[in-house]
Amino acid sequence: MFPLPQKESRAPTACPGLASAQDLDSNHGDGLERECSRKPERKLPEFSGVGDAPATVPSDSAYLSSRGSVIKWFWDSAEEGYRTYHMDEYDEEKNPSGIINMGTSENKLCFDLLSSRLSQSDMLRVEPSLLQYPDWRGHLFLREEVARFLSFYCKSPAPLKPENVVVLNGCASVFSALATVLCEVGEAFLIPAPYYGAITQHIYLYGGIRLVCVYLDSEATGLDTRPFQLSVEKLEMALQRANSEGVKVKGLILINPQNPLGDVYSPGELRDYLEFAKRHELHVMVDEVYMLSVFEESAGYHSVLSLEGLPDPQRTHVMWAASKDFGMSGLRFGTLYTENRDVATAVASLCRYHGLSGLVQHQMAQLLRDQDWISQVYLPANHARLKAAHTYVAGELRALGIPFLSGGAGFFLWIDLRKAPPTLQYLPEPTFKEEMLLWRRFLDNKVLLSCGKAFECKEPGWFRLVFSDQAHRLCLGMQRVRWVLEGKPQVPEDSPSYQSQEPGGQCR
Amino acid sequence: MFPLPQKESRAPTACPGLASAQDLDSNHGDGLERECSRKPERKLPEFSGVGDAPATVPSDSAYLSSRGSVIKWFWDSAEEGYRTYHMDEYDEEKNPSGIINMGTSENKLCFDLLSSRLSQSDMLRVEPSLLQYPDWRGHLFLREEVARFLSFYCKSPAPLKPENVVVLNGCASVFSALATVLCEVGEAFLIPAPYYGAITQHIYLYGGIRLVCVYLDSEATGLDTRPFQLSVEKLEMALQRANSEGVKVKGLILINPQNPLGDVYSPGELRDYLEFAKRHELHVMVDEVYMLSVFEESAGYHSVLSLEGLPDPQRTHVMWAASKDFGMSGLRFGTLYTENRDVATAVASLCRYHGLSGLVQHQMAQLLRDQDWISQVYLPANHARLKAAHTYVAGELRALGIPFLSGGAGFFLWIDLRKAPPTLQYLPEPTFKEEMLLWRRFLDNKVLLSCGKAFECKEPGWFRLVFSDQAHRLCLGMQRVRWVLEGKPQVPEDSPSYQSQEPGGQCR
Repeated sequence: MFPLPQKESRAPTACPGLASAQDLDSNHGDGLERECSRKPERKLPEFSGVGDAPATVPSDSAYLSSRGSVIKWFWDSAEEGYRTYHMDEYDEEKNPSGIINMGTSENKLCFDLLSSRLSQSDMLRVEPSLLQYPDWRGHLFLREEVARFLSFYCKSPAPLKPENVVVLNGCASVFSALATVLCEVGEAFLIPAPYYGAITQHIYLYGGIRLVCVYLDSEATGLDTRPFQLSVEKLEMALQRANSEGVKVKGLILINPQNPLGDVYSPGELRDYLEFAKRHELHVMVDEVYMLSVFEESAGYHSVLSLEGLPDPQRTHVMWAASKDFGMSGLRFGTLYTENRDVATAVASLCRYHGLSGLVQHQMAQLLRDQDWISQVYLPANHARLKAAHTYVAGELRALGIPFLSGGAGFFLWIDLRKAPPTLQYLPEPTFKEEMLLWRRFLDNKVLLSCGKAFECKEPGWFRLVFSDQAHRLCLGMQRVRWVLEGKPQVPEDSPSYQSQEPGGQCR
Repeated sequence: MFPLPQKESRAPTACPGLASAQDLDSNHGDGLERECSRKPERKLPEFSGVGDAPATVPSDSAYLSSRGSVIKWFWDSAEEGYRTYHMDEYDEEKNPSGIINMGTSENKLCFDLLSSRLSQSDMLRVEPSLLQYPDWRGHLFLREEVARFLSFYCKSPAPLKPENVVVLNGCASVFSALATVLCEVGEAFLIPAPYYGAITQHIYLYGGIRLVCVYLDSEATGLDTRPFQLSVEKLEMALQRANSEGVKVKGLILINPQNPLGDVYSPGELRDYLEFAKRHELHVMVDEVYMLSVFEESAGYHSVLSLEGLPDPQRTHVMWAASKDFGMSGLRFGTLYTENRDVATAVASLCRYHGLSGLVQHQMAQLLRDQDWISQVYLPANHARLKAAHTYVAGELRALGIPFLSGGAGFFLWIDLRKAPPTLQYLPEPTFKEEMLLWRRFLDNKVLLSCGKAFECKEPGWFRLVFSDQAHRLCLGMQRVRWVLEGKPQVPEDSPSYQSQEPGGQCR
């Protein structure tokens, strides 16, 4: 079976009902909820415009175009998770029996530091040039700071240039604009799976571009040195199979540090993949939004921008954002770095639809230029807090006998709930239906996780668990995870005694 | 000849070189420069995907898709105007011989008031909920303020509802998202011409949707009561002709107050056009971005949201922004109001690509809720300043014997340079080539205007002249306009004595 996400992997006949919780939802999160909360009876659209017959495009509105109906479907299908979580959000005082969110990949550990820095007097600057039409690529003063910031933190061999920087309102927009200018409708990008599933809609909704998954195995075999190891051989095979099916592949997407695996590519691996891309004249979009969220130095992270002599610099396009590394997904700042003038210009031309306020551009420039604060205050604290939270959750998982992967980067652990230890029961059968049922049991017990299916993991039973949260919420979340896995009775919806069941002393 | 902008009106064979200056450029402005600064030798693309053969799509990049090349072309073709203006921007002290910008429709009269209000302490609020993923439709607190604000200033018969509000980063994005969810690729909207020309790319670049012009005549004839009068008959004719050419029309775009005409539709006219749309099941996108910039009360402006019993509320979609009425095109705030749940939801689904910072959402909510400041401070001052600037420029034009249209709304006069008074010479022949040459003479003499062709005006010789600027710049700009029309010698590029040629006393 050829691994195209649209028809095969997501086809309703293959997996009519998928479930688990994932980065929350389309409405209020980073857009993966759909994969987990999809209703079993709801048929997925066969996407029109990507080489497939639009046989089952949702057409429940007399007012929308067929693509409008597909676009709306992405929102609607998130509703179950959205409603469930957002109507019952945990609050320590107001709603202690509400849902704990371990699904959305946000860093909630440093709001104190961010609030303090962003509230300083240098942040609020209102001058005419910031209120007038901007240079759509981003104000020059900001692009200069971005170039300096990336040069320093990516350890680039030579200073990066402001003219290669384009600023947009988040990496979702970078994906949308970049894919649109690189591909025709129906063309594709290779992506190693499991991967951050929202990319599917980022490149499809406006651009009509599809993904071709390079499926990775959880078991290290042969030359593979670790679980879910990517290799050039796997890339070659996926490309060949796409070609044989008539799918035109225009590029490769690499997420480094990886989401959801939480590990990083070594410089040697990176170079191998870039050489593979060069051989086939493929563009490479490198998503480095977690580059400063590597909390274990031993992880050995290297930005692609640190490499001496990129194999194909004209086809290598790097993106970074403030969403993860500065824990500000609501600030809407993302940036593209590319040496390709044509690509930078074409993306810039779409920037009028992805622009951010001049006032925010000033704030971002102030933040990025404050290297003392970043390096001396923010990053040390952030990394220490991430590490502590990671240590706590990892300990809980070990105590439960749950295997997991974690490479010292990102906000999440990739946990393996395929097989239960003797005392527990996870998935009775290795199916995505069972994965969904387990996800729902978590949600019914007031803890939201992300299911592997949302990341196009080919093996049912993997979940992504976000640990970048305050201790009391982590503790409660892990308690609820344990309850579910130990088969304890569900929490009553409106139990007034719920809080008393969980004295703080039980939280380690 | 059927008036499709892509093939006919913009076809290189019909008008190989267009020129004049217009809303500056794609790079640093609101995107109309392309129409004015297009190089004569440059062939326009025959847009692919809009029903026309992609015969001449620019393909000068090995790295871009065909649509990427078209998208890039929109940026590149603005370069001449961009470079010319942006490299030589007028500054009273640093560059007094620089270019005066009477082309970009921005209100530069109230930065003092805006700076003062936006710098108040209530504006900088940093809290976790504003830094986290937002509700993509916009935070509820903001949508509530938008609904209240529009209810009050649009004089809606019943309170407008927050759930019908979607917030995006500007009206360019509203056009892009709305058109994409309403139309298939290649379908079309009717639009009365002349019109704000950037709409062409707003609905085309991502959506692949075209415009069908309803060309209006400058001469009032028959039942027409004023120049460039729209009528139901003209709408019907344009629709029939589109149908006969196999172009599927899905809607109608109305700009009210009108850009570039500066007048407004009466409630009766509005209702007639909405009834026409209803008869043909057409969506209506109503662009009301100048609704609070009606500086003559006698203009009698009425928002479409003030009408009792809209003919087809499910197909009536209204947009407003802070760009014009609050003179903050750099703040990137736009909003859609629609009662159609499907349309609101589908647009919301695209909002992850058009999101604005939580910090800006807070600022906008603070601004909109401050009705005392808006009604007692800002609007009276803004209207008085607009009126004074308008009076000055109108007086200058009358002194020169230049006819113009102005309906007491917006930031511009629509001036008629087709025929010269006895002492002046404008267009030797009524062609767009001559219009371009005149535009270039203005630019060579350091004043930037917008040419009629950029608005798809069918008669060569009309220009849009923006008056919403400080007195000293207006005065200098009008002097330069006069010089050009009186055939005085051009200003040397780097004339050190330039400033002394224009003593303040000469400015009225």
